[in-house]
Amino acid sequence: METKSNNAKRRELPLYKDDGCSFEGYDPSSLMAETAKLRNLITKRGTLEILIPLCCSTSPVRHKKFRETLKGISSKTLAYRLQELEKGGVLERHSYNEIPPRVEYRLTPKGQELVESVIALLQWMRKWSM
Amino acid sequence: METKSNNAKRRELPLYKDDGCSFEGYDPSSLMAETAKLRNLITKRGTLEILIPLCCSTSPVRHKKFRETLKGISSKTLAYRLQELEKGGVLERHSYNEIPPRVEYRLTPKGQELVESVIALLQWMRKWSM
Repeated sequence: METKSNNAKRRELPLYKDDGCSFEGYDPSSLMAETAKLRNLITKRGTLEILIPLCCSTSPVRHKKFRETLKGISSKTLAYRLQELEKGGVLERHSYNEIPPRVEYRLTPKGQELVESVIALLQWMRKWSM
Repeated sequence: METKSNNAKRRELPLYKDDGCSFEGYDPSSLMAETAKLRNLITKRGTLEILIPLCCSTSPVRHKKFRETLKGISSKTLAYRLQELEKGGVLERHSYNEIPPRVEYRLTPKGQELVESVIALLQWMRKWSM
């Protein structure tokens, strides 16, 4: 009986405080599981870098601009990541029938929310790199 | 003469607005360069995952807890990432002479600031995964 009651107690983790600022007392393994899919997208090599030009502009960003900014990432990886972010509902791709052809990416509302956190992360990096 | 004046104009990028919320108009390549070192640390496989147990606790986190939570990461990678985060001034390692030995990690003030952005990022993941 005592073992059972102990098990029951263990499951009673303090709840995630939905005040927009804390996971204190939340179960880390649940958090791992709940964030798995998008964590996988966001932590891929090049994804954070693709978001950088989008943090610096409220206008759509041209494919050309990504190529210029992401010098260490191959065109193939860049194309693949952009596609993943489009499929993941973070970016919208717009292609214009012009000469030379123009391809632009803009943030979806989901992407806009992501960029807000990324900006805070980049500000932290900038602050502590100086 | 005109070329010169064009070049001068190009360099006059709008400044980063230090209102804590935007990089609008900032040069993405500068932002890439300025964040290079810490971006390299933060985007490594396993780093974000190590920060998850630290987002769920205001107390130090035991090495054991990281091992339990980060099931997909090898012990070797975990040990290496913890070391990098310690060297990077994000974590402090405390080792206690007990049987069994106890090793704990706590956030430095720099790490605490990082975790605030990471919490926002995890909240975004959780929100859009449901």
